[in-house]
Amino acid sequence: MWGGRFAAQPADAMQAINASIDVDKRLWREDIEGSKAHAAMLAAQGIITAEDNAAIQAGLDQIAAEIVEGTFQFSVALEDIHLNIEARLTERIGEAGKRLHTARSRNDQVATDFKLWTMRASREAADGLRVLQTALLKQSQAHADWIMPGFTHLQTAQPITLGHHLLAYVTMLERDRVRIIGGALEAAWECPLGAAALAGTGYKIDREATAQALGFHAPASNSLDAVGSRDFALAALSNLAIAITHLSRLAEEIVLWTSPQFGFARLSDAWSTGSSIMPQKRNPDAAELIRAKAARIGADFAALNAIVQKLPLTYAKDLQEDKALTFSAFDDFALSVTAMIGMVETMRFNRQKMRAAAAMGYSTATDLADWLVRELGVPFREAHEITGKIVRIAEDSGVAELGLLPLSDFQAVDPRITEGARALLTVEKSVESRDSYGGTAPQRVREQVERWKEMFK
Amino acid sequence: MWGGRFAAQPADAMQAINASIDVDKRLWREDIEGSKAHAAMLAAQGIITAEDNAAIQAGLDQIAAEIVEGTFQFSVALEDIHLNIEARLTERIGEAGKRLHTARSRNDQVATDFKLWTMRASREAADGLRVLQTALLKQSQAHADWIMPGFTHLQTAQPITLGHHLLAYVTMLERDRVRIIGGALEAAWECPLGAAALAGTGYKIDREATAQALGFHAPASNSLDAVGSRDFALAALSNLAIAITHLSRLAEEIVLWTSPQFGFARLSDAWSTGSSIMPQKRNPDAAELIRAKAARIGADFAALNAIVQKLPLTYAKDLQEDKALTFSAFDDFALSVTAMIGMVETMRFNRQKMRAAAAMGYSTATDLADWLVRELGVPFREAHEITGKIVRIAEDSGVAELGLLPLSDFQAVDPRITEGARALLTVEKSVESRDSYGGTAPQRVREQVERWKEMFK
Amino acid sequence: MWGGRFAAQPADAMQAINASIDVDKRLWREDIEGSKAHAAMLAAQGIITAEDNAAIQAGLDQIAAEIVEGTFQFSVALEDIHLNIEARLTERIGEAGKRLHTARSRNDQVATDFKLWTMRASREAADGLRVLQTALLKQSQAHADWIMPGFTHLQTAQPITLGHHLLAYVTMLERDRVRIIGGALEAAWECPLGAAALAGTGYKIDREATAQALGFHAPASNSLDAVGSRDFALAALSNLAIAITHLSRLAEEIVLWTSPQFGFARLSDAWSTGSSIMPQKRNPDAAELIRAKAARIGADFAALNAIVQKLPLTYAKDLQEDKALTFSAFDDFALSVTAMIGMVETMRFNRQKMRAAAAMGYSTATDLADWLVRELGVPFREAHEITGKIVRIAEDSGVAELGLLPLSDFQAVDPRITEGARALLTVEKSVESRDSYGGTAPQRVREQVERWKEMFK
Amino acid sequence: MWGGRFAAQPADAMQAINASIDVDKRLWREDIEGSKAHAAMLAAQGIITAEDNAAIQAGLDQIAAEIVEGTFQFSVALEDIHLNIEARLTERIGEAGKRLHTARSRNDQVATDFKLWTMRASREAADGLRVLQTALLKQSQAHADWIMPGFTHLQTAQPITLGHHLLAYVTMLERDRVRIIGGALEAAWECPLGAAALAGTGYKIDREATAQALGFHAPASNSLDAVGSRDFALAALSNLAIAITHLSRLAEEIVLWTSPQFGFARLSDAWSTGSSIMPQKRNPDAAELIRAKAARIGADFAALNAIVQKLPLTYAKDLQEDKALTFSAFDDFALSVTAMIGMVETMRFNRQKMRAAAAMGYSTATDLADWLVRELGVPFREAHEITGKIVRIAEDSGVAELGLLPLSDFQAVDPRITEGARALLTVEKSVESRDSYGGTAPQRVREQVERWKEMFK
Repeated sequence: MWGGRFAAQPADAMQAINASIDVDKRLWREDIEGSKAHAAMLAAQGIITAEDNAAIQAGLDQIAAEIVEGTFQFSVALEDIHLNIEARLTERIGEAGKRLHTARSRNDQVATDFKLWTMRASREAADGLRVLQTALLKQSQAHADWIMPGFTHLQTAQPITLGHHLLAYVTMLERDRVRIIGGALEAAWECPLGAAALAGTGYKIDREATAQALGFHAPASNSLDAVGSRDFALAALSNLAIAITHLSRLAEEIVLWTSPQFGFARLSDAWSTGSSIMPQKRNPDAAELIRAKAARIGADFAALNAIVQKLPLTYAKDLQEDKALTFSAFDDFALSVTAMIGMVETMRFNRQKMRAAAAMGYSTATDLADWLVRELGVPFREAHEITGKIVRIAEDSGVAELGLLPLSDFQAVDPRITEGARALLTVEKSVESRDSYGGTAPQRVREQVERWKEMFK
Repeated sequence: MWGGRFAAQPADAMQAINASIDVDKRLWREDIEGSKAHAAMLAAQGIITAEDNAAIQAGLDQIAAEIVEGTFQFSVALEDIHLNIEARLTERIGEAGKRLHTARSRNDQVATDFKLWTMRASREAADGLRVLQTALLKQSQAHADWIMPGFTHLQTAQPITLGHHLLAYVTMLERDRVRIIGGALEAAWECPLGAAALAGTGYKIDREATAQALGFHAPASNSLDAVGSRDFALAALSNLAIAITHLSRLAEEIVLWTSPQFGFARLSDAWSTGSSIMPQKRNPDAAELIRAKAARIGADFAALNAIVQKLPLTYAKDLQEDKALTFSAFDDFALSVTAMIGMVETMRFNRQKMRAAAAMGYSTATDLADWLVRELGVPFREAHEITGKIVRIAEDSGVAELGLLPLSDFQAVDPRITEGARALLTVEKSVESRDSYGGTAPQRVREQVERWKEMFK
Repeated sequence: MWGGRFAAQPADAMQAINASIDVDKRLWREDIEGSKAHAAMLAAQGIITAEDNAAIQAGLDQIAAEIVEGTFQFSVALEDIHLNIEARLTERIGEAGKRLHTARSRNDQVATDFKLWTMRASREAADGLRVLQTALLKQSQAHADWIMPGFTHLQTAQPITLGHHLLAYVTMLERDRVRIIGGALEAAWECPLGAAALAGTGYKIDREATAQALGFHAPASNSLDAVGSRDFALAALSNLAIAITHLSRLAEEIVLWTSPQFGFARLSDAWSTGSSIMPQKRNPDAAELIRAKAARIGADFAALNAIVQKLPLTYAKDLQEDKALTFSAFDDFALSVTAMIGMVETMRFNRQKMRAAAAMGYSTATDLADWLVRELGVPFREAHEITGKIVRIAEDSGVAELGLLPLSDFQAVDPRITEGARALLTVEKSVESRDSYGGTAPQRVREQVERWKEMFK
Repeated sequence: MWGGRFAAQPADAMQAINASIDVDKRLWREDIEGSKAHAAMLAAQGIITAEDNAAIQAGLDQIAAEIVEGTFQFSVALEDIHLNIEARLTERIGEAGKRLHTARSRNDQVATDFKLWTMRASREAADGLRVLQTALLKQSQAHADWIMPGFTHLQTAQPITLGHHLLAYVTMLERDRVRIIGGALEAAWECPLGAAALAGTGYKIDREATAQALGFHAPASNSLDAVGSRDFALAALSNLAIAITHLSRLAEEIVLWTSPQFGFARLSDAWSTGSSIMPQKRNPDAAELIRAKAARIGADFAALNAIVQKLPLTYAKDLQEDKALTFSAFDDFALSVTAMIGMVETMRFNRQKMRAAAAMGYSTATDLADWLVRELGVPFREAHEITGKIVRIAEDSGVAELGLLPLSDFQAVDPRITEGARALLTVEKSVESRDSYGGTAPQRVREQVERWKEMFK
């Protein structure tokens, strides 16, 4: 009567709800790492014997090897990665395996594993961004004086240099890196392990020891917070969301630049898709995908944030979605960064088309106004008015670039304008002149390139 | 240097970007259905021969059988479900297979397949909601006169009946069903097939024929819109998002009702998870999961909407994410509805605890005020003031229910209050009295149950 | 010590939390309409006297006049529009005013007013879209045979007509209108008035009468649902969100088309912003704003949906945000539609640039492939291969349009290609040839224009 | 025909699109601060005279005074706060006012002002959180040994102390503070002023000087990034979104705790709303509002992130929405923190009800299991099994607390269980025993309280 998709038996549906092994098996490395640290501490505290600990350490190492080799049998009946590994451990080493879970609970175990995973993935994401920055930097250096239009409202505003434009992204991505690494450092502050189910434990455990063994600064100071909070994941997701927003902007520019109307750039074969019938066509699929992934990562954050908002302390099943959302966001991010690196490294630019576009739209008009202010002391607003009149003459005469208008036309509006002023109105002179710190002048771009290279050493 | 996750070779990364077969293979049924209709039309129009058509029809049927049987080999190299099926067809039937793609393109093919899938999934989702409504209706009938507190702000406001409360969800879900079915009907209005790449085709095709064969009302009237729009998916996602918001509210109530503090209801073993150590514990995991899925489906809509917003016409790779998001939302919805059906059908209520809770907080105070207005003609605001004074006396005396206060205390505030008035202040009298249409009185609830049963026939 | 913004006295902060008059005063019209219907019904049922009713009707009319004239004094101390109007009524007409609130509560009153407002605003939004469709239709008719590039991935795919492109939006917006009107019709199904606080009432009210007087089909069949549900607002917001996504796509195109690189179109002075210094500059601010508003309306839906998801039945203060979000979304939508109408009506297109762009990129290559299939019976895949070779020759020779390549070059690849085939490869022939239903051929566009004009009569 | 809301004249609609003064006038303080620093630098560099600078400084101070006094006339015709102030300056001091805008543009001016505002608001928000932490800490100290149930899945899990529960929020909020302050520090890294329109300037400005004068570490190293990026606002919004998610969890708990079913806590009159008719009713409106605001702030981040994602460099009108969204989020946050402080400071707890609830559900079962492991060396899984049997006996006998079961019943399951073990099964012993670092034992709670008090000094 109603579709088979709803006809699942309770057992099946509840299993689908409960079992998380398909998702959380990615935590295997952290789970083993955490269990090894926990067992070593239990032995050091005399809670388990040295023999048991030795068996556990060896057993977990063997399980890690099995997983790497692909021979480990994941079981849905065992629900999650934690029970899968523990069951296999007991299968291999017997009684000692049953003592591993002393003085901990799945709640603090999950929180610790997931935090470790997020910290590791964050560091990898930051490393990926550094590679992308390096690619951008190389292109910046190679194109420090290539002239292109600087846009506001996608209208030509002033000429800039391509190197300067690409450095803008190096700068943005540096802040993104700082935020992502900062999130990982913050997560490393407190280790959940030892919070047990939610209230702490009566065993005489040494939480300092496990915290340090796992790379944390300290044990978490509140057990309820330790098992019930996920702001480390939220912070990681929002940091990714902001970073991929910057990638999305660059992706949007790649789509524009490689369109026939712009023609500023050409993607390599490897990083575009073609058409069997139109060989000149290079669809910027990788760039488009990044834009889409940006929307998805934003939604991943929104979903997890909405989930957590509803919850009284401490753990509730709603939180099971945290891993699926976080894994998906980091995967999408890694794919996007990889694609962007590939595109940036292999993209070729069309100097002629960019230069021609930069000269359109009287993009050097403000240079004339600035000259009037600077050299003649004309008040700012009046200078603008004079310039506007001259631009209108150029437009009416069909002269495309302001610097190509005869001096007489300038002087008809204001006789004080000199040949020297007119000579400044090329796009080359314009970009050279904007040499304030952080400005687009090629020498400034080159200085910034050097500064970044120094930083990246 | 930087994590292996970024070290993918271009080929791998581009394949990850391009290939969608892991996601879109779920469209196989619709793809075969669409291709069969297309081939039959091409033959009817004399564009391909009857023999070719016969070979295509038979070949596609065989491929469908292979997929059902699980013997079909999906190939990532062939990118998507459309090319996988076409390649297999040509493998099986030779030249004729190469003629199938005449007068269509992947763009209109994808749009058609995905629309058909969404229509089908929407109808199934609506059917699932109907089953849930039926389960709720049965519980409403069984508990038409069980009294519970009606809450505002989670504070007791007035006594209501459990049957009435559950019927509220039947009503909400009916609107949800109407919206979901309405979305499917709207999607069925126009068939994209025949829009070709984006501009239509010069072949003399019969779009009416394919539209009707596939269950659409008419061919799409604009080819650019046909291949580039996804509002049918957005509408489906927002309809699911609103519907699961209602499920989430009910799930929230189940979590509350089954908490020890409320104790209004008890989930069955099959639809809760237990604890090996605390046998009385029944964690409402299924309800909690529904709350989390509500957040996720909302985010799926947000992501797809954000993706589409950015795009000039017509197709861009960004749209590839449409299927992953839509499939995920429908899967989560189906799982949630299934879980809710299971919980509602097997949940048991605690009449005593609900009745006791309903009587707390002087929940019948407005009944006294209404009596004063109705029987004595006391102005509304004055009636409230009198009642407030009496409630304060009850509170000061530690009398938990207003109806248990001696008549003398009522008359001390207003001597006109009679024993008859006092007798109205039980929760039973209160719910009986609220018998306006749509009100909580048991007879009204029973009437509504009959009305719904009639509708559901 | 900590900023003054947090130093608010409790009274101030609680007032900021409680008072909604600044937002909900926009409901004044609906509130008066609802109260008049309620009072008339109370009188008809004998619950209040005819005299009281007459006084109430007159009093409310006078209050409406005061609000229109701007002489009504809104008071924050009176919290919301409902109490403001009731207090003023009692001030004007005395005792009778105190009887108005008999057999209703603020809960059903708010739900009714807000539903009425949303229904009205939805109808207005739909009317606005119709005006926009009319503007688009006019431009479609005027440009039925103007040729422009049809894009996929923002790469030139095939030539299309501008009229066809604009009609795509007429089509999308028609679905948007249908959804928005459908939402209003669905909201009109059930009237909340008479649900009282949450449980119905014991007064012998006539809910049919008030429902009909206010333009609803029927009274709401469940009082809890009536006061606690907001899916009518969610549906309205998601319908707006989808509709503005279409506007956002058109806005994105306007930004592209008016950029110097495209040069396809020019906004009028009235609908762009200029620069005092660069007179040729026309910033598409209105289009950009629409893109931003699209993101905001999507977020309005997300916020309200997240708010409702958390709530057990029935009313909770969280719902107070429903109006601010809904009003903001409708305002942003109205502003966006107005701006789009203004831009579309006054935008001028550059036929030459669009035609030139359409011819770039060998956009007629598929026309040659189709000719090979159709006229020579060449299998589809082989036809593509032949065409690809010819395009490569054109590219190598620097010939920009396929139709300009000498016949000999065609015949070097396949001697069967005729002058007739070559003559088909202009953009004009290409668009003319795509004359399947819904295709881009000018005659098809003109037919569709006529169909829409007939529909819009 | 179509509603008046769409009938706006172009001029009106474009003004609504362009003018931002209603929103951005809140930047007046930062605008004046920025202009004063800029003018001082221009004078120091010899770009304007010392006299002009003196006039500008005095003029801006007077304008600040006018705004504070409320006598400043904001003009919509002058679009935004920047032009309003500049126009007024010129009105007051003449020619010198016209020189202020030398070597800057509205683009870098807006970016600087908005960044300064966000930094300041972030610091205020962090200060507000500190006040809230202090209030929580005080309540923690006062209730360090009050016993309440610790929940997972809203089911009783183990007894905990109220002080411990409240400290969990102190801990979460500390991370929130660190993130918010960290965001402000990161924003302070680079000053946009001097980036000019987008490319830098040719004036010999001293960007170090203005950066330092305004409290930044350094001038922004890339002018395009400086005017076109808004990640400082995105980071601020996401930090607020995560922080208010924690507030929302506490608000959810307040709604639960103050419900009659829980009865754990009672809000003060000042921080709840009442009912004229039911004096015992205390609606937790302020808590509910916080939950709703959490959804809104999340949506504010989503909206701004979606807006920025679409944009190529550099400025586009879409970004105008940045301020409305950011102001709204900070306002909602401040209101929420204020309300939470008020509630926390004045909330009273019901020790008896919390203690009774903690004892329900055999919440000390794990204490028995731990005793078996610890004292008898019983393997973990076997200990759980023994305990489960005993709990079942208690449940069957109707004994509500495990510690109240006769010793004979324990020994019937396992004769090794001693009276000493049984004596541990009170909630008091249970919480005392969980004394691992970060655990719920009262002495641990008191230690943490002292640690925080030390930190907050």
